[in-house]
Amino acid sequence: MHNELKIFACSSNPALADAICQHLDVPVSPLTVSRFSNDNLFVQIQENVRERDVFVLQSFTEPVSDNIMELLITLDAMRSASAGRVTAVIPYYSYARSDKKDAPRISIAGRLVADLLRTAGADRVLTMDLHADQVHGFFSMPVDHLTAIPTMAAHFRKTHDLTKMVAVATDAGGAKRAGRFAVKLDIPLAIIDKRRISDTDVHQGQVVGEVAGLDAVIFEDEIATGGTLVATVDTLRRAGARRVMAGAVHPVLCGPAVERLATSGLDAIVVTDTVAVDADKRARLPQLQVLSVAPLLAAAIERIHSGESVGALFG
Amino acid sequence: MHNELKIFACSSNPALADAICQHLDVPVSPLTVSRFSNDNLFVQIQENVRERDVFVLQSFTEPVSDNIMELLITLDAMRSASAGRVTAVIPYYSYARSDKKDAPRISIAGRLVADLLRTAGADRVLTMDLHADQVHGFFSMPVDHLTAIPTMAAHFRKTHDLTKMVAVATDAGGAKRAGRFAVKLDIPLAIIDKRRISDTDVHQGQVVGEVAGLDAVIFEDEIATGGTLVATVDTLRRAGARRVMAGAVHPVLCGPAVERLATSGLDAIVVTDTVAVDADKRARLPQLQVLSVAPLLAAAIERIHSGESVGALFG
Amino acid sequence: MHNELKIFACSSNPALADAICQHLDVPVSPLTVSRFSNDNLFVQIQENVRERDVFVLQSFTEPVSDNIMELLITLDAMRSASAGRVTAVIPYYSYARSDKKDAPRISIAGRLVADLLRTAGADRVLTMDLHADQVHGFFSMPVDHLTAIPTMAAHFRKTHDLTKMVAVATDAGGAKRAGRFAVKLDIPLAIIDKRRISDTDVHQGQVVGEVAGLDAVIFEDEIATGGTLVATVDTLRRAGARRVMAGAVHPVLCGPAVERLATSGLDAIVVTDTVAVDADKRARLPQLQVLSVAPLLAAAIERIHSGESVGALFG
Amino acid sequence: MHNELKIFACSSNPALADAICQHLDVPVSPLTVSRFSNDNLFVQIQENVRERDVFVLQSFTEPVSDNIMELLITLDAMRSASAGRVTAVIPYYSYARSDKKDAPRISIAGRLVADLLRTAGADRVLTMDLHADQVHGFFSMPVDHLTAIPTMAAHFRKTHDLTKMVAVATDAGGAKRAGRFAVKLDIPLAIIDKRRISDTDVHQGQVVGEVAGLDAVIFEDEIATGGTLVATVDTLRRAGARRVMAGAVHPVLCGPAVERLATSGLDAIVVTDTVAVDADKRARLPQLQVLSVAPLLAAAIERIHSGESVGALFG
Amino acid sequence: MHNELKIFACSSNPALADAICQHLDVPVSPLTVSRFSNDNLFVQIQENVRERDVFVLQSFTEPVSDNIMELLITLDAMRSASAGRVTAVIPYYSYARSDKKDAPRISIAGRLVADLLRTAGADRVLTMDLHADQVHGFFSMPVDHLTAIPTMAAHFRKTHDLTKMVAVATDAGGAKRAGRFAVKLDIPLAIIDKRRISDTDVHQGQVVGEVAGLDAVIFEDEIATGGTLVATVDTLRRAGARRVMAGAVHPVLCGPAVERLATSGLDAIVVTDTVAVDADKRARLPQLQVLSVAPLLAAAIERIHSGESVGALFG
Amino acid sequence: MHNELKIFACSSNPALADAICQHLDVPVSPLTVSRFSNDNLFVQIQENVRERDVFVLQSFTEPVSDNIMELLITLDAMRSASAGRVTAVIPYYSYARSDKKDAPRISIAGRLVADLLRTAGADRVLTMDLHADQVHGFFSMPVDHLTAIPTMAAHFRKTHDLTKMVAVATDAGGAKRAGRFAVKLDIPLAIIDKRRISDTDVHQGQVVGEVAGLDAVIFEDEIATGGTLVATVDTLRRAGARRVMAGAVHPVLCGPAVERLATSGLDAIVVTDTVAVDADKRARLPQLQVLSVAPLLAAAIERIHSGESVGALFG
Repeated sequence: MHNELKIFACSSNPALADAICQHLDVPVSPLTVSRFSNDNLFVQIQENVRERDVFVLQSFTEPVSDNIMELLITLDAMRSASAGRVTAVIPYYSYARSDKKDAPRISIAGRLVADLLRTAGADRVLTMDLHADQVHGFFSMPVDHLTAIPTMAAHFRKTHDLTKMVAVATDAGGAKRAGRFAVKLDIPLAIIDKRRISDTDVHQGQVVGEVAGLDAVIFEDEIATGGTLVATVDTLRRAGARRVMAGAVHPVLCGPAVERLATSGLDAIVVTDTVAVDADKRARLPQLQVLSVAPLLAAAIERIHSGESVGALFG
Repeated sequence: MHNELKIFACSSNPALADAICQHLDVPVSPLTVSRFSNDNLFVQIQENVRERDVFVLQSFTEPVSDNIMELLITLDAMRSASAGRVTAVIPYYSYARSDKKDAPRISIAGRLVADLLRTAGADRVLTMDLHADQVHGFFSMPVDHLTAIPTMAAHFRKTHDLTKMVAVATDAGGAKRAGRFAVKLDIPLAIIDKRRISDTDVHQGQVVGEVAGLDAVIFEDEIATGGTLVATVDTLRRAGARRVMAGAVHPVLCGPAVERLATSGLDAIVVTDTVAVDADKRARLPQLQVLSVAPLLAAAIERIHSGESVGALFG
Repeated sequence: MHNELKIFACSSNPALADAICQHLDVPVSPLTVSRFSNDNLFVQIQENVRERDVFVLQSFTEPVSDNIMELLITLDAMRSASAGRVTAVIPYYSYARSDKKDAPRISIAGRLVADLLRTAGADRVLTMDLHADQVHGFFSMPVDHLTAIPTMAAHFRKTHDLTKMVAVATDAGGAKRAGRFAVKLDIPLAIIDKRRISDTDVHQGQVVGEVAGLDAVIFEDEIATGGTLVATVDTLRRAGARRVMAGAVHPVLCGPAVERLATSGLDAIVVTDTVAVDADKRARLPQLQVLSVAPLLAAAIERIHSGESVGALFG
Repeated sequence: MHNELKIFACSSNPALADAICQHLDVPVSPLTVSRFSNDNLFVQIQENVRERDVFVLQSFTEPVSDNIMELLITLDAMRSASAGRVTAVIPYYSYARSDKKDAPRISIAGRLVADLLRTAGADRVLTMDLHADQVHGFFSMPVDHLTAIPTMAAHFRKTHDLTKMVAVATDAGGAKRAGRFAVKLDIPLAIIDKRRISDTDVHQGQVVGEVAGLDAVIFEDEIATGGTLVATVDTLRRAGARRVMAGAVHPVLCGPAVERLATSGLDAIVVTDTVAVDADKRARLPQLQVLSVAPLLAAAIERIHSGESVGALFG
Repeated sequence: MHNELKIFACSSNPALADAICQHLDVPVSPLTVSRFSNDNLFVQIQENVRERDVFVLQSFTEPVSDNIMELLITLDAMRSASAGRVTAVIPYYSYARSDKKDAPRISIAGRLVADLLRTAGADRVLTMDLHADQVHGFFSMPVDHLTAIPTMAAHFRKTHDLTKMVAVATDAGGAKRAGRFAVKLDIPLAIIDKRRISDTDVHQGQVVGEVAGLDAVIFEDEIATGGTLVATVDTLRRAGARRVMAGAVHPVLCGPAVERLATSGLDAIVVTDTVAVDADKRARLPQLQVLSVAPLLAAAIERIHSGESVGALFG
Repeated sequence: MHNELKIFACSSNPALADAICQHLDVPVSPLTVSRFSNDNLFVQIQENVRERDVFVLQSFTEPVSDNIMELLITLDAMRSASAGRVTAVIPYYSYARSDKKDAPRISIAGRLVADLLRTAGADRVLTMDLHADQVHGFFSMPVDHLTAIPTMAAHFRKTHDLTKMVAVATDAGGAKRAGRFAVKLDIPLAIIDKRRISDTDVHQGQVVGEVAGLDAVIFEDEIATGGTLVATVDTLRRAGARRVMAGAVHPVLCGPAVERLATSGLDAIVVTDTVAVDADKRARLPQLQVLSVAPLLAAAIERIHSGESVGALFG
């Protein structure tokens, strides 16, 4: 294989691609994505990739189906153009949330999409903060699964007083993730115990653990409409929390999210740039602080390319 | 396997599903398709399908990526729900147009999507009038490939005087398809010979063959924006054609198509319902005549289900 | 396929096989397992299985490697003997605990073993209470994933006063499972928040939630050496719990477990027979109450065989 | 991988192998092909190929089945001998003509053979002028698909006056290929419109387009028995063509072809050496002019080996 | 699946197909095999096979490559025509002799051909007296491996005095097969110990065991050119054998075989009809006695079709 | 790929790993194997293996199932840790003995285990003296199959007078292997002809060939319980053999083997270190002479790594 690294970016997050390439001091390689009049996607690689070590960046953000199809077609074009090795870099793998069968006759789409990536020609995957750690096992190719939790914890450590802080999980399923954040900061953990009363009604939840008089950081993997977050703010306030903040890796921020969060009373919302947040949204949500995962992804790409340990990165 | 046939319809063309089921005198089986706030699709089959002989209908119309993902997730759910056999019924397989490499470093996406269908769990495929016959060979599972050309030819035979009629292909690549239509009606064939002058400029084309004084039927597999069709009308008029009509299996009719065609001077535009055309478009395009392929698809489904010859259908 | 159901049992849990077959009123079909002098396993099916609907029962209990190899060889023999369909019935899938990469350069063996089962010829899998729900997605064939939680909850409801009861998870990772148990009984939830102090030292844990004066039921998926359980009893006692009981689906009970638990002060230990517990162990551990999953597995096998909904079983 | 290129030749076209190797200044690597008394083929590679970049040349000429089996066995031997990468170089892929289902219950053998090549161990394929461009999509490995059309067009440009020339396709299916040739020379296109009258009878065909007074070049992908070609000469003569010539990439020339063509009145028959034409045939068919594709194949092999763009070759 | 059995015959052994079908009282289903002028094979199934239980008969006799390709194309056509299950019936699997690597850089073609059969769509294989029992393990689908040894032993028991008989293997590799024959007749075994002196020279061999004064039956799997057989007759004569006879399952009888054997002094040559021997050969070789395997194959096909034990056939 | 060779050793034969590494002058790379309390195996690779050329050594000795599972998990961990190429080095592949179906409804486990190795991620296999040569064909990846027969023959040549020596196979199935040994030493061959009298009774066997007054070397692939060997010593003694020795590649030596052999009257038992024999066994069996295959395996590993011919090693 040519000892040449090439990074291509599909449509979802060009700013992150630029940032990664700046860290690596390589250009973003050119890729044309267009759409035929019948709505078929068309991708053309604008540079020879024979035997090169290729990385293709795409986050599964809205429009998710287009972004997935775009990535699949790009991967297929790479393989067919004789790329030496193709790594799909997917900072936000949305379908990780479809990770189990909690209703009959549904698809575990997180596994399906992993299989589609293999079919399309991905030799490996680089991703971040999957909704559940087990989703790693859905892939039949090597996966490097990074986490932004240390980056986010470091930010809180630098900017806040930890002595009065508690990490909060919005439900039992998220206890493990919030627990990891709590451990990094050596702070206690609380959990919201939500119960479904009927098909359409869910209790707002009881706080399991101590939050009275403390600064609560609600910690999640992603913020979508912000509904859960806003409800949790209320619950925590009622339970006596002093300040309430939020940390989440993937700022999906769809639908009414920005409006809701802007008026939620959250003191700070710390996220990363795995999902692009446009300038308008940033302007309307002044509490939002975006930490960049570009240094982390750049370091991982460099190590994957050169055959150095990626695990060592987090030593 | 249970000797029970079940037909499900994804979102793209419910009217066709209804028509097929009416022909077969079975209900459309219930399927829920929804979308999470992070734009992930969610599909739930609302009925036991264990060991049943399941058909899932979806045309690859706009939004194509969503419709493909929806079908893939539904197929996966069917397999995972232990369906006995799953046939993807795809009246319009849009990516058949991505059937070769006419530029370097692109995907033959017609093959890729065929592979994705297999990965998702399709045991067989039932489709119609693929852009090229060879696309059949892209699939690794059995395919029943129907054609609406006899149906359309029968319509012209019934409604027009054939003695002064000529079939026209809009380029050399379509000569075979138009030739087949011409043979069915025993009328002559003409071809538009288009040349690319430069990257951005294409000659409007020379008519190869006789059209002067004749009723020309431009025959295509699909009408997208209608641009080629309108240009061909002009070319044929200049070459002396008396009337100009169009026949096309798949009425994609996107972007400016309806406006263009309404004012194109086309006397008739005959299509099928492989692609749903809404009432508004129909109203704005009075020349449009829609023939239903529901009887054909229903007969094929019945024969696939009962193990009778599908080829015999066209005896 | 012949409409004949055949159930075979590998070595790990013959009593459960007998109980299932009694429920279904079919005999256990004969299978010979032996060992060559070079320690190779040898399996011979003692009955014609051509085109039959075959179920092979094996739990992954000690000796786990032998039990897995035995199952793989049996599945291969079934396929090679032209069985119509082969379902691996694995009430206890031990490697579900290897479900993620929490250390560098390890195998997600839960996925590997799922792939080995497919390679050996399993057409489908029937299993119970996987360590994490996501493990379902490790399998590339249809899986019916049953749970004994309702059975166990029903037992507690019948035998105890629920008004003073709290469900306890031994760590954040188990919060979801214990939460499900709590919901079934409509009782509150508490969680032990354990932290790793150093490589060799783990805090005994803080109780997150209220347990003082309550009857605590520690709820787990499996009990192995009983170490965590015993430590949790102490923690709960110190936090003021009145009585402490335990519920766990899979009674692995290895090493010092029986001794530890007998003297743990646990008032009751409720488990199922997914893992065989011999008479000696039962005698030495009088608090143990074993609920049988045979009715549940029998019903599922019957429904899989006849193509009825398995989900409906839990309606 | 060792940076060493090795070229092996199966039995079908040793002269082409020699010519390619001369261009590349490498020896043809030794390969023994023999036949056991029971008619089994036996292939032995006579040189170490571990980790080498291996190219195996074979055209699918008569005896086609032997030549395919010979290639499959050679590919398998290469893989088993630990070759680093194996490219099947197939200048003439005869089964490309079996590219669709134009009758019920037949094989699309062009796809089947592509799958057999993958099964036998081909990592990639290098081929020329497939009967239809879509056949590219039958392969599941990367394919470099070269064309001799520019080479042949250049020859006509150099040796003939183009101002009075027209390119002719022998049927609608070949319109695209002849059109490409016409575009290269900037000459007009005509098509023979043939109709099937009954199962055994085909109309000799009408000329669609202008040929009177012109020099016609019938352009095809291959010449087998020459029957179509000879019939087309007559049709063109009757339509007033001045001179008639033929161009075809693959000179299969089987059965009565040489006799027919020698007396056909064709002024020139231009072909390539993708298929070997022996000295005797060449002597009996003086109009035959053979252009070599060795420089083209050699350049492609060099670029595949070194990871340079093959597309750029045709810039 | 339709409960209908259909038997098709490729070109190699129509008489055996007829005999099998007579035993089963079903007609041979019609199949057209032809050859295009470019030597491509073309197969068309002349009857609907949807969901039917299809058996395709082909022996790998000369021309072996054509016969293999013909079978592969037929299998692919069956799958593509939606056959319910396809069994390749291969009474003589010639490539079983390519079962190991006794020279470097060769193919184990017996495995390769097994993989090609799977790629082409064989669901199962029915074959007879493979050169080595281990070849069974080359197939990844279920195989029923029959043997004609009991049939042949029964013939000798009926027609000869066994008290003075010895079974002879022509080399150490055949000791196992001849031993099986000897056991069936309860007669002693002798082996020819051949040594290779140099690359071109092989000792005629020493007889290991007693043959003096005995009737020797040389027992082999196949007779190709008869060279080994004739040499063994001489060796046995010199060692004092009284009469010499031969038994072999597969009468390949190629090249000089008939002439050699006619004058070899062999008293009897007993074979089966797995390979067709034409009338001319039979006339020139009066010692030849052909036992039919049709009853055996017919019984196996019936049992495979109906799901009865095939092993029980040999009880 | 990094041009770095790394050798890891699973649990079965650390001494052989050390010896091989000493020959290659590389350290044994660190690998941790442990066992969870539920008897699940856990493997962690203790060194970065990204893009490295990795060899993993494991013999399938007692406990065989654990040793196979350990290897499978290690291979999966290697692949998942992005090893460049993974070679499973299996000096003793016990399941090679399960190489055929000599009873109905059993697994050809030698093939199954080969498939499991591929599923787990082995790119290639290096093994020695498989029970039958055909087992090579069970693997779908490249295999280097070494033999210790020349090493063992050289030992006998050096230590014994060959003029009075005869090689003995313990049954017809082993004739080929013993024949190979005999050829290497240019000594005659004898075979024990054993017959099964009833299901439980086997004749002790007749000697086919001359052994009276000769030094007999019984040659086998492996010694398990030593039962066959001891019985053969008696048979040979009764037939007049002067001295009796044994040679076998794999000293499995299980159950009563050491006791039996120590008192068997065998003058010498020559084996290799493909299977570890502990010091205690060596002490109790003074006739045992262990030849090391480490030089052979080391040379093969070096050549596989560097892309030199392995076959040439045996030139």
